[in-house]
Amino acid sequence: MLRFGILGAGRIGNVHARAIANSGRATVSYIADAMPEAATKLAGIVSAKTQSVEEIIAAPDVDAILIATPTDTHADLIEQAARAGKAILCEKPVSLSVERIEQCLKVVENAGVPLMIGFHRRYDPNFAFLEKRLRAGEIGDPEIITITCRDPSAPPVSYIERSGGLYRDMMIHDFDMARFLLGGDEIVTVHALGGVMTDPEIGKAGDIDTAAVHMQTASGKIVVITNSRRATYGHDQRIEVHGSKGLLRAANIHDTTVELANENGWTEDKIPFSFVERYQLAYTAEIHKFLDFLEKGEAPRASGHDGLMAQKLAEAASESLRTRQVVQLS
Amino acid sequence: MLRFGILGAGRIGNVHARAIANSGRATVSYIADAMPEAATKLAGIVSAKTQSVEEIIAAPDVDAILIATPTDTHADLIEQAARAGKAILCEKPVSLSVERIEQCLKVVENAGVPLMIGFHRRYDPNFAFLEKRLRAGEIGDPEIITITCRDPSAPPVSYIERSGGLYRDMMIHDFDMARFLLGGDEIVTVHALGGVMTDPEIGKAGDIDTAAVHMQTASGKIVVITNSRRATYGHDQRIEVHGSKGLLRAANIHDTTVELANENGWTEDKIPFSFVERYQLAYTAEIHKFLDFLEKGEAPRASGHDGLMAQKLAEAASESLRTRQVVQLS
Amino acid sequence: MLRFGILGAGRIGNVHARAIANSGRATVSYIADAMPEAATKLAGIVSAKTQSVEEIIAAPDVDAILIATPTDTHADLIEQAARAGKAILCEKPVSLSVERIEQCLKVVENAGVPLMIGFHRRYDPNFAFLEKRLRAGEIGDPEIITITCRDPSAPPVSYIERSGGLYRDMMIHDFDMARFLLGGDEIVTVHALGGVMTDPEIGKAGDIDTAAVHMQTASGKIVVITNSRRATYGHDQRIEVHGSKGLLRAANIHDTTVELANENGWTEDKIPFSFVERYQLAYTAEIHKFLDFLEKGEAPRASGHDGLMAQKLAEAASESLRTRQVVQLS
Amino acid sequence: MLRFGILGAGRIGNVHARAIANSGRATVSYIADAMPEAATKLAGIVSAKTQSVEEIIAAPDVDAILIATPTDTHADLIEQAARAGKAILCEKPVSLSVERIEQCLKVVENAGVPLMIGFHRRYDPNFAFLEKRLRAGEIGDPEIITITCRDPSAPPVSYIERSGGLYRDMMIHDFDMARFLLGGDEIVTVHALGGVMTDPEIGKAGDIDTAAVHMQTASGKIVVITNSRRATYGHDQRIEVHGSKGLLRAANIHDTTVELANENGWTEDKIPFSFVERYQLAYTAEIHKFLDFLEKGEAPRASGHDGLMAQKLAEAASESLRTRQVVQLS
Repeated sequence: MLRFGILGAGRIGNVHARAIANSGRATVSYIADAMPEAATKLAGIVSAKTQSVEEIIAAPDVDAILIATPTDTHADLIEQAARAGKAILCEKPVSLSVERIEQCLKVVENAGVPLMIGFHRRYDPNFAFLEKRLRAGEIGDPEIITITCRDPSAPPVSYIERSGGLYRDMMIHDFDMARFLLGGDEIVTVHALGGVMTDPEIGKAGDIDTAAVHMQTASGKIVVITNSRRATYGHDQRIEVHGSKGLLRAANIHDTTVELANENGWTEDKIPFSFVERYQLAYTAEIHKFLDFLEKGEAPRASGHDGLMAQKLAEAASESLRTRQVVQLS
Repeated sequence: MLRFGILGAGRIGNVHARAIANSGRATVSYIADAMPEAATKLAGIVSAKTQSVEEIIAAPDVDAILIATPTDTHADLIEQAARAGKAILCEKPVSLSVERIEQCLKVVENAGVPLMIGFHRRYDPNFAFLEKRLRAGEIGDPEIITITCRDPSAPPVSYIERSGGLYRDMMIHDFDMARFLLGGDEIVTVHALGGVMTDPEIGKAGDIDTAAVHMQTASGKIVVITNSRRATYGHDQRIEVHGSKGLLRAANIHDTTVELANENGWTEDKIPFSFVERYQLAYTAEIHKFLDFLEKGEAPRASGHDGLMAQKLAEAASESLRTRQVVQLS
Repeated sequence: MLRFGILGAGRIGNVHARAIANSGRATVSYIADAMPEAATKLAGIVSAKTQSVEEIIAAPDVDAILIATPTDTHADLIEQAARAGKAILCEKPVSLSVERIEQCLKVVENAGVPLMIGFHRRYDPNFAFLEKRLRAGEIGDPEIITITCRDPSAPPVSYIERSGGLYRDMMIHDFDMARFLLGGDEIVTVHALGGVMTDPEIGKAGDIDTAAVHMQTASGKIVVITNSRRATYGHDQRIEVHGSKGLLRAANIHDTTVELANENGWTEDKIPFSFVERYQLAYTAEIHKFLDFLEKGEAPRASGHDGLMAQKLAEAASESLRTRQVVQLS
Repeated sequence: MLRFGILGAGRIGNVHARAIANSGRATVSYIADAMPEAATKLAGIVSAKTQSVEEIIAAPDVDAILIATPTDTHADLIEQAARAGKAILCEKPVSLSVERIEQCLKVVENAGVPLMIGFHRRYDPNFAFLEKRLRAGEIGDPEIITITCRDPSAPPVSYIERSGGLYRDMMIHDFDMARFLLGGDEIVTVHALGGVMTDPEIGKAGDIDTAAVHMQTASGKIVVITNSRRATYGHDQRIEVHGSKGLLRAANIHDTTVELANENGWTEDKIPFSFVERYQLAYTAEIHKFLDFLEKGEAPRASGHDGLMAQKLAEAASESLRTRQVVQLS
């Protein structure tokens, strides 16, 4: 069984550690966190030990490093793990800087270690099934891709201040999803709109909370993305692809199938308010796909290159918002 | 253009008169009603004249008689119209007495006039499309038919007292729908349950307001019907057929497609509370099918025999409730 | 009863004429068309007479002129009718030229006659109900408006060549819908994407067949529109408004509520392939709202100013596509 | 952590063993099965040992016995486990004989051990949420309960021959669900219909494959159940409760939320074909509720008495089918 060292015992580290422990195919050997109690607590849950980041990366009984630390440490830790010859599963993004990502990917390439980026939505059973059917040609060529992503509520302003902004922090998942669905037809034109509508504090922090980006690929396909940091009705996550032979869409998941009819109408149950709950199956599948990548040689569903390309789109959107102009990518 | 004489200017007479006037294929010549003002008012709307029932039936410029008077007059009026050589479209039921229906149908047969019974649901676009697909074999042989019918609220107790009871007054439409869907495989076993749950006054009037009947055909197919005189959420009208190759169902129609999502869930719009609104398209189609019957020689979708058979099932259900036994039909 | 003169007996003229004849509140007196047989045929259906355009506009027994002629005649006919003191209901657009619209509206203003523009979607019961609930504050302030409009198939290329292009011919309805929903917060920023994906002949005619426009209002609200001239699954017409307190959306109408379940999944019925069928209730409501405007003094739901503003947005989108730049409206 | 001994390593034993192993609150100590390899294999998966049934029941390091052996052994094993002072979670039914169940429950009562019956549907998140909202009064008093249960395909005829028949083997879950929803208002009237429609071999084995039962409670509430052993579209599992203030229903779960629109209509994804997949969350919740029962003293959601009462209804339905009469329960 593959042995993981986990760097970072925060919310996302917890999700990954549990998914590994329940996979039946891998174990968590060590956990590190800047807050020792967090590492200790999580280690207890998944029967692991705590060590320092450096010790874990160097440990001979660790086969793979899962990086779930703050964003600004990702690139350095990837390089350290790569040089130590470990397989790497790193949470997005590799870095907020495109240049830094490119450097980092070279180190990985030189080290020859496997690297997969944690774009968990690619593993969501709904989105993955939509992509599979799209690839199988069920709706012919895709022409318009519409991605809707709205979070129940914004993260703390302290987080937003260091996040790189909505396009890099939140919409990056949608940029990656667009590329996942486009299947190689790269985006060349980007225009972004955005505003502060949900919380003026977000504006004071220099960010936006509501945004739309539309983009066009080299071959002319259109991608439309909308984001909001606040949706009173939950974690709104939808994809729709209009193609030459039909339309495929993945709707929201509801908490239950229970419906109430009365004089107010017919009310379906809520959708999840927690991304952990919404993407529970995705995180589980992600670990299995990482193991398939390592053990069966299957291509990683999201590679370092995918991480780089999504970041470039986030850069372009950020620039478009700043300059109020269309941005062309080469 | 075919010329109608309409007997009865109540709610259902109004629905029919307007449907005829808007059909573009027929006109209303005369209207009669026990309340002269009602006849006069409706005549004004559809550009007709008022006359007595006897005059209308005898009128040479009337081709067809539409009977929308109280139930206890139907059989007599059918016979009079038949003897006058008129085509007849009569609201259900022909009579609350099976024997009376049989007599009446003989008169019609001897007169050789066309007769169609107003089981409007057979003309509902949803139910008609379901039946068409069932007949086309899309789900193979039907095995279990489930019919749900719930009214927003009960008619006045004064009406209920003379209605013949829930099975004859309300569920008769479901008995007819079952036969429509069964396509000739007649029902031989009937068991009925019922109770007073919505209004004790209905019980005092000797009737029930909530009921279930299940039945079996000669070949073994199963039919399940449930009724309630009160649904807070509107006019609940659903059909479901489980067959050897799949399932067909007709869901409720909603007022609009507008949906609201908020912290309470996702709420679809209400369904109609008025049967006139719910079955508006059905009443229009019914007139056209009657005209197709007269002009093109198409078989009537609901014949006098269908009226008789539905009444027999209502009788059986009423007897089953009374005796608390299963009733076998020959 | 108000008396209409109808100019143009094509497809849309037919729809309006029938809606008027069935309204019970107005009649069609005269019909004109460049093809006399078309006028004669429609006149027969709605019990009207045929006359020349000039005669109809001058006729003392005509209260209102309905203009359903080719686009390039609209502005001239509006002016003639206005000078003759007639009330006017004109199909969109007033003109493909913003300047021409402005001139024309001055003539109408000077004449002091009522003018309403035929943006039929404002009268669709679904969209109208959504707007009503939005205005009532059910979801607080609107933040992101998403409008999806896809036609089953493109009009003939000969039509497209004279249409002014997709933004002016097709998306203009969506521009108007956006303004209807925004309720006075005007759009100031427009960026358009487009391409030829469904038929190269459309490209040769100088137009596009697939398009996305996103826009922002003075207060920052975002509007996203996508169009396609070809949808294999029918006339896709959806609206969604994300607001501060929730989400309102109007889904597609299906032909029936019948659903089939088998080994392939659960299949709902198709949506309409004909805009006449899709918007039948909208056209009926439009006539009634025009009559309410004339008789009860209610504000027209779509005024000449609304026609002008939608055209300005279509201009801006066309310019954006041509220059590949963002267009700012003053 | 509570230590389980599992008797029976078949399909359902596997489901339970994994649910226990993944619960984080309990472990599997021992597994027994008539086929030693099955026990050994499952033991390997959940890190348990194999032993004989007698050894497991006697083992001091076993706190609870989970019985997942063939039906005809349940009552004996419950008694043995009870006399050994173990807590017991037994798959339904306790016995096909009502008398045997009564004897067995006395033994359990005398031993004073906790007993819970494995009616897994009571733990399904959808059905449990429906029941919770029903209990909370969201739709007032329940009046008509409709339960739809259809399996993708029948078990082997060899199984059916020993199963006690459809009412005892399959519909027993629906009888229990009806009682769960009725909340103490016991059923007094039962009438059953049934037939062989899917496979004549089932008829030769003396059983039916398609059935409807309707029932009435002491207070008059109506319950309607329909079953089929074969549904081409999957494991159809639905509940609907019509109440004095509205309607609550639990719809089917679909494999994904992906939907395809094309010229054939709009097709939602399939529903599960495997009951293990369909009720995965229910089996997990069941283990947790059993642990809550043991550790927190919460009442078992399905007690031995519930097992007895469901069996009585299955008896009544079987008798009704045989005699073609209504059966009254005291």
